[in-house]
Amino acid sequence: MHPLFTLSLDLGPRGYEIVIGENLLGRVGSLVKPLAPGQQVAIVTSTTVAPLYLAPVATALGEAGFTVLPIILPDGEEYKEWPTLQMIFDALIENRFERSALLVALGGGVIGDMTGFAASAFMRGVPFVQIPTTLLAQVDASVGGKTGINHPLGKNLIGAFYQPRLVLIDVATLKTLPKREVLAGMAEVVKYGILRDADLFARIESNVEALLRVDPEVLIPIIRHCCAIKAEIVAADEREGGQRALLNLGHTFGHAVETVTRYKTFLHGEAVAIGMVLAADLSERCGIAPTATTQRVRALLERLGLPVQTPRLPVADYLDAMAHDKKVQDGRTRLILLEEIGRAVIRDTIDTKQVAATLTANMATK
Amino acid sequence: MHPLFTLSLDLGPRGYEIVIGENLLGRVGSLVKPLAPGQQVAIVTSTTVAPLYLAPVATALGEAGFTVLPIILPDGEEYKEWPTLQMIFDALIENRFERSALLVALGGGVIGDMTGFAASAFMRGVPFVQIPTTLLAQVDASVGGKTGINHPLGKNLIGAFYQPRLVLIDVATLKTLPKREVLAGMAEVVKYGILRDADLFARIESNVEALLRVDPEVLIPIIRHCCAIKAEIVAADEREGGQRALLNLGHTFGHAVETVTRYKTFLHGEAVAIGMVLAADLSERCGIAPTATTQRVRALLERLGLPVQTPRLPVADYLDAMAHDKKVQDGRTRLILLEEIGRAVIRDTIDTKQVAATLTANMATK
Repeated sequence: MHPLFTLSLDLGPRGYEIVIGENLLGRVGSLVKPLAPGQQVAIVTSTTVAPLYLAPVATALGEAGFTVLPIILPDGEEYKEWPTLQMIFDALIENRFERSALLVALGGGVIGDMTGFAASAFMRGVPFVQIPTTLLAQVDASVGGKTGINHPLGKNLIGAFYQPRLVLIDVATLKTLPKREVLAGMAEVVKYGILRDADLFARIESNVEALLRVDPEVLIPIIRHCCAIKAEIVAADEREGGQRALLNLGHTFGHAVETVTRYKTFLHGEAVAIGMVLAADLSERCGIAPTATTQRVRALLERLGLPVQTPRLPVADYLDAMAHDKKVQDGRTRLILLEEIGRAVIRDTIDTKQVAATLTANMATK
Repeated sequence: MHPLFTLSLDLGPRGYEIVIGENLLGRVGSLVKPLAPGQQVAIVTSTTVAPLYLAPVATALGEAGFTVLPIILPDGEEYKEWPTLQMIFDALIENRFERSALLVALGGGVIGDMTGFAASAFMRGVPFVQIPTTLLAQVDASVGGKTGINHPLGKNLIGAFYQPRLVLIDVATLKTLPKREVLAGMAEVVKYGILRDADLFARIESNVEALLRVDPEVLIPIIRHCCAIKAEIVAADEREGGQRALLNLGHTFGHAVETVTRYKTFLHGEAVAIGMVLAADLSERCGIAPTATTQRVRALLERLGLPVQTPRLPVADYLDAMAHDKKVQDGRTRLILLEEIGRAVIRDTIDTKQVAATLTANMATK
């Protein structure tokens, strides 16, 4: 058995632990037991993940003495809306779940976001545990307490800041993850290097092949490193007043890419990869970052098999989508740009013409 | 102008003030100004309240420099569900409301509960202000941070603990409130006396006529007294771990009355009046309260024109509704009973047979 890494997120009474390792699902019962106020546990998962991991998790929780209710939701970002959330509430209420119940999110970011929001709102708040089964959710969505659902006009517009009681990251679940989704997760891994840690970025550059093999020896410490960066930033700024916004590197552009392509073309991580290239380009264009930056960012993302070109669609559509973004403040879009690899900064004074130039310069040729 | 009463609710960073007086609506601009992070304010109100008070509130906010968006919702408890909540989100998003926006709840408890929940979830949380226009909302719903919507299987099953930044109570709004709703609010006023303050109870007994006239001289200090009791209890127990449950006096029974009558027969306060008689009767029946208690509670509620008899419906339906209540823990219904007028206690060991006997004994003859 590989060693178990544990990280603590310091949020006072809302603090929790992140446990990272391989083949951990069988231990979920003993890990969850001290955190659960009662006997009822609902496992919220998707039609994709349920056949793979519901049985071992349910068995482990059952053996620990819990009454287990599986709630299996349709899979995909397009279901991250109210009607699916309501399926969770309906199942909990029909099965007489009480205020002492605990929810377990078993799946990717969509499952984690919806389960967390459901936990925040059911009976005005019950505890929940995250078991992220995609790389993207492991390094990003499961840490930090952002939960929510989409609105037809934009992503994550309705939700809550609500912390889990535990995050359990089992890299063994990545063995069944489609290659494309592993790569999309790598975009978020690269993000942590770009925004905060040039050494991590260099380590990823040196280990592309091992990462593409999903080698636990290389991947576990890198996931831990990403979670530690996120944990540090979140602990300093739980509700995104300041530096937590740095985690949105590539995301304002990325969300715009997802919006204009109606969430049909790219996985979230892929859109973020495109967004990070745009953020780097804009940083150079505004004279904030040195000239080689974009090229180095783009090269690593390409080696990891990620898209780096912006779809050829009207620039006005992108700008409109960005204007609807949550990160808009007093009509100004707040962007995360780069001073260099390893150092991201917040800017809200960027000229829209520069943004438009960046979009145009990075568009695919067809 | 009558004096302005101000109460502070001590919840640390989530603390806020409750301002109570007469003819305050014109002052909302200057009161809200220091609390609003930006320029955008949405006034959420109902089709009933909008023709009466939307104009003065919108004007006052406009004069204070805010951009004002009115959101007018259909009126009634039956609309306190997701589709109506979504109308708030749709309006905010379509009008490009940002994270720095502020919501104002202008109306009764339903408007306050929905606006508060919408504020908690929009962009994962924006500030909101309560302007309760019913007596029930003034003494109860507007203080304490409980927000939420109903589920077809039960009241308030989905929501958040989310505190307003300010509560503005203008008793002048009660002049337009239908008599029946004023009386329903009196039930909650009486509740504070029963659960915590025998002197308040006696003061209500001595002032029934003035209260029925909605005399500000008598009503303002009594509302302030009720809010102070609630503020004290909430400050000690924000998330209902312990004594906050005392505020549910009459509510487990009351919710059951509302559920079995499908929310069609009674106003919430009326159901609580019936529920308080049942709680008093059960307290006597279990030997917790002295024998005259129920009679005194029932007599005051009757003088205030409130219903005191339980509708003649199957006892099993009431018990079933109570089993679905949020306050159930590990299968046990937690009830608020009385040791005497002015002293409520929490009990979760009451025999269902005693509950059934109380329901039967208090049923209307037809």
